[in-house]
Amino acid sequence: MKTISELMNELKDKNLALPIWFEKGTLKIIDQLQLPFKEVVYTLGDIQSLAKSIRDMNIRGSGAIGICGAYGIYLAALTSKGNKKVIEEAGRLLKSTRPTAVNLMKTVDEMLSVIDTCKDSVEVLFRVEQKAVEIIERQLQFEYELGRYGSTLINDGDTVMTYCHSGALAGSGYGGRALSVIRTAFEQGKAIHVIVCETRPYLQGARITAYELKKFGIPYTLITDNMSGYCMKKKLIQKVVVGSDRIAANGDLANKIGTYMHALVARENNIPFYTATSSHTIDFSTARGDEIEVELRSGEEVTKLNGQQIAPYGTKALYPSFDITPNHLISAIITEKGIIYAPYEKNLKTVMEYNNVAH
Amino acid sequence: MKTISELMNELKDKNLALPIWFEKGTLKIIDQLQLPFKEVVYTLGDIQSLAKSIRDMNIRGSGAIGICGAYGIYLAALTSKGNKKVIEEAGRLLKSTRPTAVNLMKTVDEMLSVIDTCKDSVEVLFRVEQKAVEIIERQLQFEYELGRYGSTLINDGDTVMTYCHSGALAGSGYGGRALSVIRTAFEQGKAIHVIVCETRPYLQGARITAYELKKFGIPYTLITDNMSGYCMKKKLIQKVVVGSDRIAANGDLANKIGTYMHALVARENNIPFYTATSSHTIDFSTARGDEIEVELRSGEEVTKLNGQQIAPYGTKALYPSFDITPNHLISAIITEKGIIYAPYEKNLKTVMEYNNVAH
Repeated sequence: MKTISELMNELKDKNLALPIWFEKGTLKIIDQLQLPFKEVVYTLGDIQSLAKSIRDMNIRGSGAIGICGAYGIYLAALTSKGNKKVIEEAGRLLKSTRPTAVNLMKTVDEMLSVIDTCKDSVEVLFRVEQKAVEIIERQLQFEYELGRYGSTLINDGDTVMTYCHSGALAGSGYGGRALSVIRTAFEQGKAIHVIVCETRPYLQGARITAYELKKFGIPYTLITDNMSGYCMKKKLIQKVVVGSDRIAANGDLANKIGTYMHALVARENNIPFYTATSSHTIDFSTARGDEIEVELRSGEEVTKLNGQQIAPYGTKALYPSFDITPNHLISAIITEKGIIYAPYEKNLKTVMEYNNVAH
Repeated sequence: MKTISELMNELKDKNLALPIWFEKGTLKIIDQLQLPFKEVVYTLGDIQSLAKSIRDMNIRGSGAIGICGAYGIYLAALTSKGNKKVIEEAGRLLKSTRPTAVNLMKTVDEMLSVIDTCKDSVEVLFRVEQKAVEIIERQLQFEYELGRYGSTLINDGDTVMTYCHSGALAGSGYGGRALSVIRTAFEQGKAIHVIVCETRPYLQGARITAYELKKFGIPYTLITDNMSGYCMKKKLIQKVVVGSDRIAANGDLANKIGTYMHALVARENNIPFYTATSSHTIDFSTARGDEIEVELRSGEEVTKLNGQQIAPYGTKALYPSFDITPNHLISAIITEKGIIYAPYEKNLKTVMEYNNVAH
């Protein structure tokens, strides 16, 4: 059986961009808020610090927050020397940090499920560590699988557009979702170029996706979000791969605000538009995209940029955090279980049967 | 006959946002680069200062630069006491500032045309002043006419989206092109709300359009450029009105990068998409939009925002300054001569017959 420390040693050799890792009895995270200009690593010695980092968005992305559940429960078990009460309390705290983060809930529950039948604290600690190792490895395996399937859609010489950040630091370090597809194709030796949209208002593309592409040595060009139309019409882009926040039972895609416009432009110019996702993100309790309520965030994030006011004082702004791309604009849904094509209502269901673990 | 000073007194009463005016023997411009946070007025005592301000983009927008030709030649005539040689030299200097500014060329030529037959410097000065008054009034009249026609397309209660800056400071002070349409509808008592796209990379929407709307008391909401899809799908927008850099003989529209995407989204959601323009902007020597070469500007304007680096150092970026919206996405072309509908190839020609003055 592999220990956490042995796993960490293995991960070091894999050229990953880890959002979180374990080192000398503490957790380490890279502060995503300070990227790309400062690579600041925080050392978190207790579960309260981890909870605060999740809440403050220093660590973000559904995959990354999911594995925080594994690392966090393991840290609680380690520091409490296997005390069940302390571990359960840690689980409650972690779950409270991001109430809509389904992956985090499921991972915490999966971690806690192993302690019920343990006869003593030594067994608790042992089984929690084993489960953490299993979950972290599984998440990484998910990214390799997603990449392996998705990369079959990318040709040698393609320029691939991606949007927002759906990469390593939002996952477990290889490439998250959209970037796993691109990275795998690149590592297969295909001559790939990436077009990155900056993704206003929060600039996840310019800041984090560009940072990862640079780190992994994948050539890229930055554009503002309003330039994809020009690029697609000029055939400067051959494929589009984006991530996904949620997919409805009919294949409608909820993703970062602006995704819908890019998908429309892609369809108009006969460019395939793919979403890379976890089979777990498919929400069969939501029949159609228009049932998904779009969160409206503070308009201040629009009137400011990196804290700098860009519009007249007193300007009101709207900030819907995501939009809905209708299923007919999506060429295929890439999952770790394979590539799913329309009709989605039927074909997504077949995936569900195997859909029992969090990614 | 009206003098420049009398005209300036009239303009004061009209609630205009003047890009340039005449005061106590000098020209005044508002520095558009410092808007919306600082309203800095420059006093220009000679033609060299005006040329520099045009070159440095302190004053910009095709209408505004056009009337600079009138103000500039008048200033040269005034300071040289009607010296033909000095005036002609001023004309050459002004024309060299922005070699692609057709309006500026035409206005300078129109101004210079009056001096040929003058018998002495007194007559030169008199006729130059008269011509300047004529051109400035004509430009303002153009905006009122454009607004009068365009406003018939805007209904009481409409929310109108506009893009980039196509307003007063780019024209002669009333509303330029797109904003003349919106402003006239508003002044007719229609309950108008405006959605302004910020317009990356240069943020003309967030900075200048928002500034003018605030100044004129027209209610508005700011969005980032990737949000128009969400807004149109949710029917938060009833009409789109944008300006135009150039219109080909078949009605294809060259305008600020991103215009094409907004037009596509509008068509998809059955929302009328209008361009407001001068009949003069219609370029019959260009048959189709794809013949127009798109200027590629420095990628640094994308990797930086207000001078602040937003992407990893070394990031390459693309910056096409405009894109082409195909004619079938344009519901109507609003001009000072009336509203033109498809088929544009035929209907634009009928306008040409009356197309003899610069706007």
